[in-house]
Amino acid sequence: MSQQMLLQEMMDKFGFKKENLAAYLGVNGKILNSWFASSLSTEYTPMPNGVFNYISEFIEKNSLSGVYNLPLRNKISFFGKNHLLSVEQFDRDSIEEVFSIADLMVPIARRKKISRVLEGAVLGNLFFEASTRTRVSFGTAFCRLGGSVCDTTGFTFSSMAKGESIYDTSRVIAGYVDIMVVRHPDRGSVSEFARASNIPIINGGDGPGEHPSQALLDLYTIKNEFSRLNKSLDGAHISLIGDLKYGRTVHSLIKLLSLYKNLKISLVSPIGLEMPESIINYASRNGNIVSVESSVKKGLSGADVVYATRVQKERFESEFEFRYESDFHINSEKINAFCNKDTIIMHPLPRDSNVGSNDLSTDLNNDDRLAIFRQSDNGIPVRMAIFAILLGVENIVHRNLRDVEWSRPVYISFADAAFHNL
Amino acid sequence: MSQQMLLQEMMDKFGFKKENLAAYLGVNGKILNSWFASSLSTEYTPMPNGVFNYISEFIEKNSLSGVYNLPLRNKISFFGKNHLLSVEQFDRDSIEEVFSIADLMVPIARRKKISRVLEGAVLGNLFFEASTRTRVSFGTAFCRLGGSVCDTTGFTFSSMAKGESIYDTSRVIAGYVDIMVVRHPDRGSVSEFARASNIPIINGGDGPGEHPSQALLDLYTIKNEFSRLNKSLDGAHISLIGDLKYGRTVHSLIKLLSLYKNLKISLVSPIGLEMPESIINYASRNGNIVSVESSVKKGLSGADVVYATRVQKERFESEFEFRYESDFHINSEKINAFCNKDTIIMHPLPRDSNVGSNDLSTDLNNDDRLAIFRQSDNGIPVRMAIFAILLGVENIVHRNLRDVEWSRPVYISFADAAFHNL
Amino acid sequence: MSQQMLLQEMMDKFGFKKENLAAYLGVNGKILNSWFASSLSTEYTPMPNGVFNYISEFIEKNSLSGVYNLPLRNKISFFGKNHLLSVEQFDRDSIEEVFSIADLMVPIARRKKISRVLEGAVLGNLFFEASTRTRVSFGTAFCRLGGSVCDTTGFTFSSMAKGESIYDTSRVIAGYVDIMVVRHPDRGSVSEFARASNIPIINGGDGPGEHPSQALLDLYTIKNEFSRLNKSLDGAHISLIGDLKYGRTVHSLIKLLSLYKNLKISLVSPIGLEMPESIINYASRNGNIVSVESSVKKGLSGADVVYATRVQKERFESEFEFRYESDFHINSEKINAFCNKDTIIMHPLPRDSNVGSNDLSTDLNNDDRLAIFRQSDNGIPVRMAIFAILLGVENIVHRNLRDVEWSRPVYISFADAAFHNL
Repeated sequence: MSQQMLLQEMMDKFGFKKENLAAYLGVNGKILNSWFASSLSTEYTPMPNGVFNYISEFIEKNSLSGVYNLPLRNKISFFGKNHLLSVEQFDRDSIEEVFSIADLMVPIARRKKISRVLEGAVLGNLFFEASTRTRVSFGTAFCRLGGSVCDTTGFTFSSMAKGESIYDTSRVIAGYVDIMVVRHPDRGSVSEFARASNIPIINGGDGPGEHPSQALLDLYTIKNEFSRLNKSLDGAHISLIGDLKYGRTVHSLIKLLSLYKNLKISLVSPIGLEMPESIINYASRNGNIVSVESSVKKGLSGADVVYATRVQKERFESEFEFRYESDFHINSEKINAFCNKDTIIMHPLPRDSNVGSNDLSTDLNNDDRLAIFRQSDNGIPVRMAIFAILLGVENIVHRNLRDVEWSRPVYISFADAAFHNL
Repeated sequence: MSQQMLLQEMMDKFGFKKENLAAYLGVNGKILNSWFASSLSTEYTPMPNGVFNYISEFIEKNSLSGVYNLPLRNKISFFGKNHLLSVEQFDRDSIEEVFSIADLMVPIARRKKISRVLEGAVLGNLFFEASTRTRVSFGTAFCRLGGSVCDTTGFTFSSMAKGESIYDTSRVIAGYVDIMVVRHPDRGSVSEFARASNIPIINGGDGPGEHPSQALLDLYTIKNEFSRLNKSLDGAHISLIGDLKYGRTVHSLIKLLSLYKNLKISLVSPIGLEMPESIINYASRNGNIVSVESSVKKGLSGADVVYATRVQKERFESEFEFRYESDFHINSEKINAFCNKDTIIMHPLPRDSNVGSNDLSTDLNNDDRLAIFRQSDNGIPVRMAIFAILLGVENIVHRNLRDVEWSRPVYISFADAAFHNL
Repeated sequence: MSQQMLLQEMMDKFGFKKENLAAYLGVNGKILNSWFASSLSTEYTPMPNGVFNYISEFIEKNSLSGVYNLPLRNKISFFGKNHLLSVEQFDRDSIEEVFSIADLMVPIARRKKISRVLEGAVLGNLFFEASTRTRVSFGTAFCRLGGSVCDTTGFTFSSMAKGESIYDTSRVIAGYVDIMVVRHPDRGSVSEFARASNIPIINGGDGPGEHPSQALLDLYTIKNEFSRLNKSLDGAHISLIGDLKYGRTVHSLIKLLSLYKNLKISLVSPIGLEMPESIINYASRNGNIVSVESSVKKGLSGADVVYATRVQKERFESEFEFRYESDFHINSEKINAFCNKDTIIMHPLPRDSNVGSNDLSTDLNNDDRLAIFRQSDNGIPVRMAIFAILLGVENIVHRNLRDVEWSRPVYISFADAAFHNL
């Protein structure tokens, strides 16, 4: 069979467009065109044997099942590649698929089962900005799938200090590891990493840009809590309170929420820290009603979810730009006054527990409605799901599960035990 | 069977008190009482299914053997939890049990055998204060049991810099990993970690507080060396010399030594650096005689063990507080003059080998009595034992041992070879 | 059999000299002599049982095959130990053996196969000087053989800050791990590590000293590229350009090149940054002609390899010592003007991609002749080979290979795809 016929069969049988196929094979459009060209034409170049065999095997393997189901990683692909850079890569169906896979991960994340499906794989955990929580969460998620982790941390990444470009750094590390998580203080920098590599890159937070795994675990938490409470996300009332201007997590979360229907979204923030107009517009679709509130009472009343954010002091240009008013401080008193018995209280963490911090109060620590640790726990199955999807092992995870043999506590802490009595 | 009957059976059959049982199940006393309450009473709450099944399986599994042997981790438990925070958790029997388990670990620590018993488990190695030696020792010990390690190092733990409480940090990380080692500059901080988590927490040194794994490996070394020399610890003469005021390791070691009988303990220190009175009193029991000496000659003469400590310069408030006199500098000349041929010389390391440091001299490096590296080597089997005990795998380690297939040197260094000719 | 006869048999049968045998057993010459001494003599000491058994088993195992092939690690040994400290440990034959083993590693390095041959082993990756690239390359190479990695990074290695000697640090860490990579800013410091340990130590760069694994991967790249182009290294023309005075990598590479024959080596550098005379003399043997050029045109014309170096600004005592002239800036224009279609362009990386940096230009990024990423990719199989050789598993790696089950891209980046069309 000629290389042109083989390429055509690949496109016809599995619904690839030329652009997707090029990305899938890791070549640019010009090269793909040269493979498609008549072997008599001057534009023609022969396709390497490795690629020919790769496509042949792909067709053979996937033809058996009659119809090829495009893997989830291709449905959410970014410029045809298996990266996770933005929440905008998802639609409602692909979100639900991610969450089904996260559900499969729960017995592993809860240390009942062991998986070794990624044994031999290496994660490059590149943190150009400190974020211990996120780094450890991704790292342990990868370990729980059986893989190994190589960390780099700190602003002093040595090569970049010597003037190395992101392109070079990314391409070099891509030659070492199988998948990368990148956190970087500059918006758009992680996309630059992605451009240099066909190895999957996960955006672990690019400054004021995106942090998609956080938004996914937030939404996963809401859906999990609602499932326990027999509530539906469509039609629910979600209140976001605090610094909505600089809070990256609420920007991403609201984009994901906009995929659902008939939501009531209340945005409660001090003057000067309001949610940007563009994101409000983004969310106002599918019958969702977004209302900007300056009254905490009005914003919180009847909410199914209260999502409080941290004041991102480090992102302000001047610390005197505003005074965060204690009115916006979420505590036991306000929750009891304005909310219901089954309202869920969330926070992306870390929260500032110093006296006078105006962050989410510790006086809710023994309140079952406080879901912040269930939320951070959910980071593990969600990030395991992301790894499994991008590396294409989501369908074989179940194959090599074993029981954990060490003793583990029934609950991670006392507070969790209390929760189970809800 | 009712939940009340099940709980009662658990207590009757295995000797749990209510307090222990609550801790064992990870709930507080109030909740346990509500499970015990009559189902007609207003205090009654139903026990979650997970807990019911957990207890049923526990009873079934342990009833087969006729009598349930409380695992070592329960005997040494801290407030009913599987933490290792202090040497005061041990009595003489439990120490001996720990050392028997450490003995089982030696073939793995010496790289003759491979164990994978903790495959799938993740250690959170949290070092808020730099201590490369301790961090690597715990990390490699966990690796040698087959587990994976996630390290965090440095004072700049990002979340805490943002005002996060120890409670939040501990609870979040406990949701990621299976066991934590915590080193922190503040006394009592590691206990705070432990309060927030039912996951085992190991104190890797909390400032001037405790460092129990160091004391255990010190005692293990003494017992190992004595076993080679056909000596018994009961009745031995142990000399501790140097900075006994700030030296955390000698404080913990002397507490463990106090579990043994008829010891002669000589405390030799410069004026101003004497052992605190309270610790001296603690050690003066079981017929042990603790004597404070200002003469090095008198303190060292006839000693079976000379334990020299590092001058903890970084713990002094002012560097001019005292002049450490060279009289207290342990070197070949003093050892030859005052000690025996089978006196063992120990040091917690690191030692300051700079000229004029007054720390343990390098002129003993080729002296077989110098046990400092055998001592640091012992950190591996002792820490492996601690991990195995706290995670309850001490009885299954032997099951999956394999031979090491790579080539390893007969001795780690020349000095070790010399030692074997003793 | 007496211990003297056993030792003699070991020497006779396998060609050990006394010096090698002592090192092999990890004892010094004096002790070996005492084992050889007549049991009636006063110098005699009995050989420990462990050593007797070790030698007996060695003889039995290796006698079966009729003749014992000294393992590669013994052929390249450093003072009889299995360290890799310098390129001077290699001759042409041992280089070729290393490369054959690296070839075996390629399917693992390219993520087609998984090896677990070093499962249970621990690498101590000690970086006293930042070098993320080198650290991650060694770390992932070890992971790909199934081992675990313990990293320490930064100048603030805590024990050494407290005055600990290299001897103590090395001996202590050698008690924890199975093999060490050490990078240190001071020339000769890694040899000091090696002296304290029989555990293999790999020099990961000792300041202005050596960085042997970089030189090996450079030469491996040249040989691989030449093999693709049907060229032979003997007789080739290699141009080294840039800072040849401080560039450690070119010093080591030129030493390895000197093992080959009839090379034409052009050294092109600005005034003040010339290659040291001693290295030029070293390389001028085997019919190799080394010519110092100040004309870029003359130095590059007809070159099979152009090896550009980074300007090591951090090694200059004063930043005003010289002005690096843009004449020596390698870019597309110069390569097209002076070089051939199959000239290979190399660089040790990182390169300074800032505007005006005068480092290797990014305008060659889509030029197939640019081999810099193929070069850094080669670090993995070469470093895997080094680990396998020093730990003596090079002959059993093939035994436990499995197929990778996760999806991986056909090419690491677009640029690699283009390359395959050469």
